[in-house]
Amino acid sequence: MTDARTPSGASAPSDAEIAALDAHWRAANYLAVGQIYLMANPLLEEPLAPEHIKPRLLGHWGTSPGLNLVHTHLNRIVRTRKRRAMCVWGPGHGGPAVLANSWLEGSYSETYPDVSRDRAGMGALFKQFSFPGGVPSHVAPETPGSIHEGGELGYALTHAYGAAFDHPELLVACVVGDGEAETGPLAASWHSNKFLDPVHDGAVLPVLHLNGYKIANPTVLARLPEDELDALLRGYGHDPVYVEGDEPAVVHRALAAAMDLAVDRIDGYQRAARSEGASARPRWPMIVLRTPKGWTGPEEVDGLPVENTWRAHQVPLPGVRDNPDHLRQLEEWMRSYRPEELFDSEGRPTAQVLECVPEGTARLGATPYANGGLLLRDLPLPPLENHAVRVDRPGTVLHEPTRILGGLLEDVMAATADRRNFRVVGPDETESNRLGALYEATGKAWQAEVLPTDEHLARDGRVMEVLSEHLCQGWLEGYLLTGRHGLFSSYEAFAHIVDSMVNQHIKWLRTSRRLHWRAPVASLNYLLTSHVWRQDHNGFSHQDPGFVDHILNKSPEVVRVYMPPDANTLLSTADHVLRSRDYVNVIVAGKQPGFDWLTLDEARAHCARGAGVWEWAGTEDGSREPDVVLACAGDVPTLETMAAAGLLRRHLPELAVRVVNVVDMTRLLPHEEHPHGMPDAEYDAVFTRDRPVIFAYHGYPWLVHRLAYRRAGHSHLHVRGYKEEGTTTTPFDMVVRNDLDRYRLVMDVLDRVPGLGVRAVAVRQAMADARTRHHAWIREHGTDMPEVADWAWEG
Amino acid sequence: MTDARTPSGASAPSDAEIAALDAHWRAANYLAVGQIYLMANPLLEEPLAPEHIKPRLLGHWGTSPGLNLVHTHLNRIVRTRKRRAMCVWGPGHGGPAVLANSWLEGSYSETYPDVSRDRAGMGALFKQFSFPGGVPSHVAPETPGSIHEGGELGYALTHAYGAAFDHPELLVACVVGDGEAETGPLAASWHSNKFLDPVHDGAVLPVLHLNGYKIANPTVLARLPEDELDALLRGYGHDPVYVEGDEPAVVHRALAAAMDLAVDRIDGYQRAARSEGASARPRWPMIVLRTPKGWTGPEEVDGLPVENTWRAHQVPLPGVRDNPDHLRQLEEWMRSYRPEELFDSEGRPTAQVLECVPEGTARLGATPYANGGLLLRDLPLPPLENHAVRVDRPGTVLHEPTRILGGLLEDVMAATADRRNFRVVGPDETESNRLGALYEATGKAWQAEVLPTDEHLARDGRVMEVLSEHLCQGWLEGYLLTGRHGLFSSYEAFAHIVDSMVNQHIKWLRTSRRLHWRAPVASLNYLLTSHVWRQDHNGFSHQDPGFVDHILNKSPEVVRVYMPPDANTLLSTADHVLRSRDYVNVIVAGKQPGFDWLTLDEARAHCARGAGVWEWAGTEDGSREPDVVLACAGDVPTLETMAAAGLLRRHLPELAVRVVNVVDMTRLLPHEEHPHGMPDAEYDAVFTRDRPVIFAYHGYPWLVHRLAYRRAGHSHLHVRGYKEEGTTTTPFDMVVRNDLDRYRLVMDVLDRVPGLGVRAVAVRQAMADARTRHHAWIREHGTDMPEVADWAWEG
Repeated sequence: MTDARTPSGASAPSDAEIAALDAHWRAANYLAVGQIYLMANPLLEEPLAPEHIKPRLLGHWGTSPGLNLVHTHLNRIVRTRKRRAMCVWGPGHGGPAVLANSWLEGSYSETYPDVSRDRAGMGALFKQFSFPGGVPSHVAPETPGSIHEGGELGYALTHAYGAAFDHPELLVACVVGDGEAETGPLAASWHSNKFLDPVHDGAVLPVLHLNGYKIANPTVLARLPEDELDALLRGYGHDPVYVEGDEPAVVHRALAAAMDLAVDRIDGYQRAARSEGASARPRWPMIVLRTPKGWTGPEEVDGLPVENTWRAHQVPLPGVRDNPDHLRQLEEWMRSYRPEELFDSEGRPTAQVLECVPEGTARLGATPYANGGLLLRDLPLPPLENHAVRVDRPGTVLHEPTRILGGLLEDVMAATADRRNFRVVGPDETESNRLGALYEATGKAWQAEVLPTDEHLARDGRVMEVLSEHLCQGWLEGYLLTGRHGLFSSYEAFAHIVDSMVNQHIKWLRTSRRLHWRAPVASLNYLLTSHVWRQDHNGFSHQDPGFVDHILNKSPEVVRVYMPPDANTLLSTADHVLRSRDYVNVIVAGKQPGFDWLTLDEARAHCARGAGVWEWAGTEDGSREPDVVLACAGDVPTLETMAAAGLLRRHLPELAVRVVNVVDMTRLLPHEEHPHGMPDAEYDAVFTRDRPVIFAYHGYPWLVHRLAYRRAGHSHLHVRGYKEEGTTTTPFDMVVRNDLDRYRLVMDVLDRVPGLGVRAVAVRQAMADARTRHHAWIREHGTDMPEVADWAWEG
Repeated sequence: MTDARTPSGASAPSDAEIAALDAHWRAANYLAVGQIYLMANPLLEEPLAPEHIKPRLLGHWGTSPGLNLVHTHLNRIVRTRKRRAMCVWGPGHGGPAVLANSWLEGSYSETYPDVSRDRAGMGALFKQFSFPGGVPSHVAPETPGSIHEGGELGYALTHAYGAAFDHPELLVACVVGDGEAETGPLAASWHSNKFLDPVHDGAVLPVLHLNGYKIANPTVLARLPEDELDALLRGYGHDPVYVEGDEPAVVHRALAAAMDLAVDRIDGYQRAARSEGASARPRWPMIVLRTPKGWTGPEEVDGLPVENTWRAHQVPLPGVRDNPDHLRQLEEWMRSYRPEELFDSEGRPTAQVLECVPEGTARLGATPYANGGLLLRDLPLPPLENHAVRVDRPGTVLHEPTRILGGLLEDVMAATADRRNFRVVGPDETESNRLGALYEATGKAWQAEVLPTDEHLARDGRVMEVLSEHLCQGWLEGYLLTGRHGLFSSYEAFAHIVDSMVNQHIKWLRTSRRLHWRAPVASLNYLLTSHVWRQDHNGFSHQDPGFVDHILNKSPEVVRVYMPPDANTLLSTADHVLRSRDYVNVIVAGKQPGFDWLTLDEARAHCARGAGVWEWAGTEDGSREPDVVLACAGDVPTLETMAAAGLLRRHLPELAVRVVNVVDMTRLLPHEEHPHGMPDAEYDAVFTRDRPVIFAYHGYPWLVHRLAYRRAGHSHLHVRGYKEEGTTTTPFDMVVRNDLDRYRLVMDVLDRVPGLGVRAVAVRQAMADARTRHHAWIREHGTDMPEVADWAWEG
């Protein structure tokens, strides 16, 4: 079913060009097989012997010939059309293919001079693959030209779109495997084309590779009737071009024609939008490539079909060292590519092989777009003074912290109107999360139909709203890794939707940081709001503060978690993370009105320390260690802690109370375990070594124990937090249900400070009475009782 | 664009029937509004006054009229066709609608007698909604007739399919909101129809409700051109029937006709497959319902359009208590439903309202399918003796534990061939995870094209393989909640993909357990394999043992985590979890050949204790406390611990070493915090109070600290585990990189046991030498050195 249409703008390749493309493809296939199998004799200069074979055969052959085919033809497009392009390789387990192409074009040897483009380098390329101390079997940060780790599947297309946004000159090809196409994130990401602006964004060219099989099963898309598949892809908003076959020369011609046709159409749409003011959403082209899994590999092994079945997925010929038949079959397979035509006597690729390869940074393995730090420009951040709230006295004025942040983000958005290197993504929550000021500076990206009642939709908007955390995350990752900045705002509980995606991004950053040639990229910044304590509209279904637990399990050199307690600390934190590089920063902050505690200067100082004593909030006089430490992290726990401190001041004025607030959770970790971790001496100075510490924490309480268990004072540390007692109720009832309320905190103090005597009994009774009053009041009124609702700091 | 085709098998409703349907719909709308706003005066027997209005207005109106419409018409289908049916309400934030319908049909009052079907009950229904101490604003376990929590969106359709599998008599309607349709999981789940057997499974009738808006944005699907939407749905394999309008009488007729048509087609497909042997995959019908968001609500509020915009999403009239205009508008709105025609003087629904409502357990709020524990039959589990491996001496024979488990699962699958109440789901990994024996008893569910080279595909298969963890999880949840059993096998690292889904399921179970009327359902059982230590084919991209950390943050009454160290303990664990109810059980087990340590009887005893001393592995003589405890959890840590114990036995025979193995991780928790937690006395008897404990743990080491920090011996606890040092390498190199290897464990002992004197120096050097040998060997050979590869227990 090869598409018969011919490209309008480019001439069909000649026979010699086809032969050269085929030579490049064969060379790449040869190199892919060699990586999986050989540790010596790379050019087959002698007959293959067991000692040339790796002891452990690891890798994925099945997808590799398809990736090699696409790479070969992308080379042609880049070279003949002088296109700036990059490619996202969805089937990243085809690492051997991408490495082979990088080696052929020379970018690999430039990046890793030890792996030269000659016989010795070919040997090194082969041996290092999936070998201890070598390179991963999947596409990874180590792979030149990649922004997309092989491994967990589903994110190729979102990464491609992220790369294309605000890069109008860029063509991002994206190979989507038919296995990956079954995943949810991938299935949703086809609709990314409703968010791609033909004027300000580049183009994405998806290549759906139907090779028919996963590890052990056929794929759904490969087994649909043709009309159903075509309807599906048109329903996704694409105009598919089909290429199918198992005869190389035919497929080369068809794929070259399909790529020309697709790029012609892309050019046409972009021209129409950019020069002629066309506003209709393009039905962007895509290519459907149907070729056999493990194409050109062994047809049959031990009497079972392999090529074009799932058996070709990994290592089609097993046990080659010990099985002379398999060894012979491997040698025949490798010689079938006619390596003597492809590499000269020194192991260098021949001129014919390299005919399609572009030059310099146009090469897919050398493009700066895939090493985005090279393109990164600092954000123009405004002075925080322009947005800070005035705090004459702490705990008396209320602001919605994220709304204040919205003003800062508006400034950043406005200041990047020309350079367009900043985006904010969110799953339909930007307004709900109080960041609506952004719409003063930009709109919401939207290429679908617009009705008169709509607000803030704009073809060139840089706020991205779609009801898919997966798309938000994937777009942003792609955007950051290609050299731009961004922020992801999300309901706290639903950040778990992208647990596994951020996992993969953290791994990417952790590895990238260890590679000298990868330039630092902007951090991935989360703003988690609509948090566990304030789900008034929703309740238990929306409550879970565990995303930070997940984050803090990961590589300490990459992860940062901040819990600013008020508006000015949020501003200072946001300013910090937006300047940072190569981190994943998680900020947890409230969107509901909350008390301001610190002036901007105080906030800056406090955030710089990350955790510290709020002297003004306690009752110690500095002459001795306090009797008790009230520590807190998070806006709601800070409020309850301050209220508890007020109660203690009133009821037990002689008690020396210290109040500590923690903004940067990693300060609690030992210094040896995290670069932000406090040295023990500092920790002891803040928290004491032996005084009771009542820690009111935003999330699961055991997180604090897990961070602080090595500290001298750990056995005196008592943590209150969220313990899964959630429902639809008032803010104060939520903290009561979880024993995080001010009255309980005071009772915790009474339980732990020795020698309080009879006064403690009376105070305890007063606290218990207050909780009883709360329960009675809320049942009747459905609101928080006045002594809570009207509370303000009196210190 | 109302579809003009008329149903073939049912007569169109008369004018009187349409009037009755409309009365039911109006009544439900009235009740939905009442729940959001009123705390008194439910029948509007006096003019609305501020004191009738709730102080906090919380809930979601926008989707409610649409849900009420669908419920009304489903009632008609169930009643007129005597169909067994249930419904999954994707827009679960429309809780007021589902509650309204349950109250109208009487199932609510039967479940909650305090909320009677009369004036008083209506008052209670209104007040309790989103009120402290009342009911959640979303559909939740408390909602009769539901298996699907409102909250995180994306899983409606997978739940519906899960409910339909192996329930051939059941019609599962499923409302999919156009917001939810943007999520990845929902986008992928349309393809579930390639896995639905028209013979052995029931039918799913998706109702895509295009009300056009999310919280603050239009939806993608509602803004597609009609041809693109139609192509998309046909590409998903459906034959859509369109219903559109904003004129109630017209829409009632169109929707009744569409439902009749859809059910006729479903009946036809099922008849053809069941009686006539038709084997083509049906192009199942679905309904596209396009009605205004917040239909019948306020058209305009304060001069801004509300009905049919995103402003209708939650509470369209804010501040009603304080705003007399809004109060008046609310009263007009509620009276527009003509409540006096809908409810009699006692507040009971009139006969006309109830005309469409079915009887007894046919009612959607009373169906046992949505309270699946009522339908649950125990699994026929075989004697474990049939599958146990023989262990004459520990640590000398190797088995692949999951392959042994595969035999057990094969038996269960075979024994349920008739009753069909057991399924195994996996993302293309069942064979890879060594569970291939299942295919002796059943096939892989598959309704798409089959080629001659395919293996094990079967229309009636009960192994479900699709490359989407989201679908696996959603299908299984739906299957379990409707009264069946199952197992989800997954690569360990990729279980994080469903972090947020399992979150929601755990919340569901936690709440269900507290509801007397919800019968216990089978547990959700995970088998996590291809774990962090054995990613030979893949490397760092596939390494993350943190899913159990996520699980252990959740409600202790629901979650269980097991790490069986060998084949027989895995069998015993699996037997236990397959019998259990209302839990989420996570089993982490290896699929690679590993040593057998325990006979079946020993394994049973060990698993029953959950954690205990392996006396035969240590060197203590029972006369005194040991010098050191080597503890372990997980197969690879157990191997390294046993090897370390062997090294200590050889090098320091006088040292009294105790070996402890932990299968059930929650045993480490305090008894007060988890029902499985050991009492302190037991913990101290096993781990000692003051001896050094070197704990080799499968996952992130701080998890053990978080579980055990309250124990007396905690300051002597030293945990080794995975610390993100991953790559593509050998099994032993992985443990060395993470300092979990036998030599490091011995060094840890030397560091912590006092008084070992000069001998310790020599042993330490021997251990360091061994690590050096390892590094040299692996660089050269790419394999593990013989002293490791050939190691066996010599105790």
